[in-house]
Amino acid sequence: MIEMPSLVDQYCHGVLRTELGLGTFEAHLARTEGPPAAGTTLFDTQTGFAVRRWCPPLLGLEPHCPPARYLARRRELGVLEAGRRLLRGSGITTYLVDTGLPGDLTGPAEMAATGAAEAHEIVRLELLAEQVADTSGTVESFLGNLAESVHGAAAHAVAFTSVAGVRHGLALAPEPPGPGEVRGAAGRWLAGRRVGGALSDPVLLRHLLWSAVASGRPLQLHAGLGEPGLRIDRTDPVLLTDFVRATAGLGTDLVLLHGYPYHRHAAHLAGVFPHVHADLGAVFLRTGARAADVLAEVLELAPFGKLLFSSGAHGLPELHVVGACLFREALSRLLGDWVTGGAWSPADARRVAEMIAAGNARRIYGLK
Amino acid sequence: MIEMPSLVDQYCHGVLRTELGLGTFEAHLARTEGPPAAGTTLFDTQTGFAVRRWCPPLLGLEPHCPPARYLARRRELGVLEAGRRLLRGSGITTYLVDTGLPGDLTGPAEMAATGAAEAHEIVRLELLAEQVADTSGTVESFLGNLAESVHGAAAHAVAFTSVAGVRHGLALAPEPPGPGEVRGAAGRWLAGRRVGGALSDPVLLRHLLWSAVASGRPLQLHAGLGEPGLRIDRTDPVLLTDFVRATAGLGTDLVLLHGYPYHRHAAHLAGVFPHVHADLGAVFLRTGARAADVLAEVLELAPFGKLLFSSGAHGLPELHVVGACLFREALSRLLGDWVTGGAWSPADARRVAEMIAAGNARRIYGLK
Amino acid sequence: MIEMPSLVDQYCHGVLRTELGLGTFEAHLARTEGPPAAGTTLFDTQTGFAVRRWCPPLLGLEPHCPPARYLARRRELGVLEAGRRLLRGSGITTYLVDTGLPGDLTGPAEMAATGAAEAHEIVRLELLAEQVADTSGTVESFLGNLAESVHGAAAHAVAFTSVAGVRHGLALAPEPPGPGEVRGAAGRWLAGRRVGGALSDPVLLRHLLWSAVASGRPLQLHAGLGEPGLRIDRTDPVLLTDFVRATAGLGTDLVLLHGYPYHRHAAHLAGVFPHVHADLGAVFLRTGARAADVLAEVLELAPFGKLLFSSGAHGLPELHVVGACLFREALSRLLGDWVTGGAWSPADARRVAEMIAAGNARRIYGLK
Repeated sequence: MIEMPSLVDQYCHGVLRTELGLGTFEAHLARTEGPPAAGTTLFDTQTGFAVRRWCPPLLGLEPHCPPARYLARRRELGVLEAGRRLLRGSGITTYLVDTGLPGDLTGPAEMAATGAAEAHEIVRLELLAEQVADTSGTVESFLGNLAESVHGAAAHAVAFTSVAGVRHGLALAPEPPGPGEVRGAAGRWLAGRRVGGALSDPVLLRHLLWSAVASGRPLQLHAGLGEPGLRIDRTDPVLLTDFVRATAGLGTDLVLLHGYPYHRHAAHLAGVFPHVHADLGAVFLRTGARAADVLAEVLELAPFGKLLFSSGAHGLPELHVVGACLFREALSRLLGDWVTGGAWSPADARRVAEMIAAGNARRIYGLK
Repeated sequence: MIEMPSLVDQYCHGVLRTELGLGTFEAHLARTEGPPAAGTTLFDTQTGFAVRRWCPPLLGLEPHCPPARYLARRRELGVLEAGRRLLRGSGITTYLVDTGLPGDLTGPAEMAATGAAEAHEIVRLELLAEQVADTSGTVESFLGNLAESVHGAAAHAVAFTSVAGVRHGLALAPEPPGPGEVRGAAGRWLAGRRVGGALSDPVLLRHLLWSAVASGRPLQLHAGLGEPGLRIDRTDPVLLTDFVRATAGLGTDLVLLHGYPYHRHAAHLAGVFPHVHADLGAVFLRTGARAADVLAEVLELAPFGKLLFSSGAHGLPELHVVGACLFREALSRLLGDWVTGGAWSPADARRVAEMIAAGNARRIYGLK
Repeated sequence: MIEMPSLVDQYCHGVLRTELGLGTFEAHLARTEGPPAAGTTLFDTQTGFAVRRWCPPLLGLEPHCPPARYLARRRELGVLEAGRRLLRGSGITTYLVDTGLPGDLTGPAEMAATGAAEAHEIVRLELLAEQVADTSGTVESFLGNLAESVHGAAAHAVAFTSVAGVRHGLALAPEPPGPGEVRGAAGRWLAGRRVGGALSDPVLLRHLLWSAVASGRPLQLHAGLGEPGLRIDRTDPVLLTDFVRATAGLGTDLVLLHGYPYHRHAAHLAGVFPHVHADLGAVFLRTGARAADVLAEVLELAPFGKLLFSSGAHGLPELHVVGACLFREALSRLLGDWVTGGAWSPADARRVAEMIAAGNARRIYGLK
């Protein structure tokens, strides 16, 4: 058995502050376009089964108890107390929180307090630009305010994140757009935009990416599964190859989020380029009983110093729990098997476990 | 051990009525372009080994006996009696039969009689259009007769199937073609066509897909491995994403056939869209000793209420047997492991096994 | 336990003749763009762990000893003696050596002497063309000399290899270019070229491929992982489908090298086309403890008579050792499991092991 250290969750969101009924809870188990098909439920997924395995014991129930029983107990404790028990039972001691999703979600400070942990903010570039656009009257003021906002965010945030792949696809031109190009795109976007309008213009998305790269903060790029997007093959991380090559040697780290089902491609890029790292986010939450097998696929090509645990959780503290528990179990089982078979030494296995669980993230994000 | 219920084979073809020699039998073990390479045989494949494992005992022989010995016994019994023993030994109690392939194959009624089972017809859209074209003199009569034929088929068939991916690739424009566009394409196709000529025009393929969607019957789309086609990446089910989105909410179910080696993509679509389901056809027949592992990959993202067993068998009743036996063994082993490890509860495992084996198909196709 | 026969390494390079320090040794463990990231080492990869597992015992050390200890012992023995112990401990009895990489590498004769084995040369088409260009004054003499060189190489080499996928991508027009097209491309290339300049013109790459096909010698095509290239998806072997189809029936065998992470696609092509074979090179060297699992994925679709072992090693004899040891262990474990579970017979497992280890290569390359 490989002992697992405490975890740095290097990419997650906050949790909902409101009490949840069965339907609302179920809706947060997966990212779908539309409600579950008649005759089916989102509880009948690897995510649903994993929640039912790991979470009931933290609230004093039997594993695999029926969803309705679990939700009743959750309401009995209240959303705050349930959240406290769950987050504190997860084994996560540092949360990096992407604050860029809408909804009544806890921020980093509240995550830290509820989870008795540390927490830092990840700033989502597209939201930042949309917020700046909401309050800027002209193209010049938009671009000036945006530069200032990115600069300001870099001072307090631990990282930037971008959903360019979900908004447009990752097949973006790799070089930074020229100033005239950016001004033109900003003008067209602002002219056609209502307050709150989403940014999907490829020139402005590239401008954001390069602004973040210039800041020196690590840049997390959504790839593979993540938020529902246009078409999953447009978020294959291999499409980032030329952008990755263009940003090599500039001193800014890139982190490929999620990756799955293109996780072998993300691992390949982490193996070839010194500044590229691969996140394990979607693996655990989405694949449940299969977590060890999918993790093993990432561990083929990715150097062990370039892999980062995250829960990828959003909305339900249950998802932070499931991400953390499945990670610990999967990594422990996998490395344990390799040690037993003689492929790895016990000391190496312990060392690699610590690197993926926390050490690599501490190094890249400069955490204590 | 998870007990397995009787199976609904939701996609297969009939079996050959003629006695087979070693060479003809071998040719049905794989779909190749050309005969086996000198010095090799198609028996030396996962399919060949699986046939030799599962079928000889049903004809009173030892597992893994040499192919020539097996074929001799098969001829000794006669094609009818051998077929009866094989199909009745498969554990399949309902066959959905695609009648759209050429050759002297048994239809649904004969499959039912031979296998002591139920059977229903699946109508292949492209063949339907080709048959209508063979007997229609003008564009107007072709389109009118086609509409009538689709309408008629919807009344007696259990589903439609399309090989648009094999004929043209799945990267089809997602919206229905306009009436003028369809008339133009039909005119060009009929003018250049000889009797029996195959349909590969993308406008007419889309017209067929949308005619089937309008009928309300489930529509099965070939993806990934299936029939030999142009190029396998052109049948990646992810290419259907926009078509899937365009057909959402219309009340017609889509079933992605085969999928492999893009089965994780098919599972992803089944997870995101309520009306999409994933078939397991090619998994068992093609990957043999690897069936449990490939099945496990599909079980990562696909909701358990959206997965359907099929054999995908064609020509040889041995392939129905292999599909069914490998499915039962693989699912039983996989779910058994998850129960043993505590990831799933025994009750959930039994319930999911029944859903994939038969329940989901009964719900989607309205079977008793 | 399946006993393993001696191995034919059907694709590798020579080993370095110079003594190596820790840094130079480490640099040969992976193919990266840039040095390892600060705080990481290329020893912390599956390749690094596999070298530390398999090689120290051949030099009289404990498995998994620290890299510095291993390198010290290696220098103590001297590069020649260390190379002799390693290669002779690998179990490889025939090496097919691609001589087309730069550096002070041993050629086939030296590999044979050092390893107490047989060795044959594989000629790299692009290097051949570049060497001819270096010494040809005109387009006519270049094309004439090239034809003569290919003809000459076919007489002594065991195979040709091409890195067209790395230089341009595998999405090449499938048919041979016309003579005028070739002359035009050669003229443009020679005019713009300095001595030693690399060939990446798609017309000339296609001309080389078709020259090799015409020679009748097996043609090895780099696909998937291999040398660092433009973008990995441009080396997906599925992109070769039309070229494969165009070369069917001409009597020349094609071998898809590496394949991973598109190894299932390579296996698919080997299953569909009689003249296509799949190499296992990158699997073992790159994925280490995962070798059996990745090998298993190739064994889904590839006919057992179409799979070829190779180490894919370059520069370090340690990599020949790792490739061979991981192959033997992985295949033995995998087939052993299938025999234990009843899926394969012991006799079939032994037969298939021998085919993949050596027999298929002997047949295809006409080795004794």
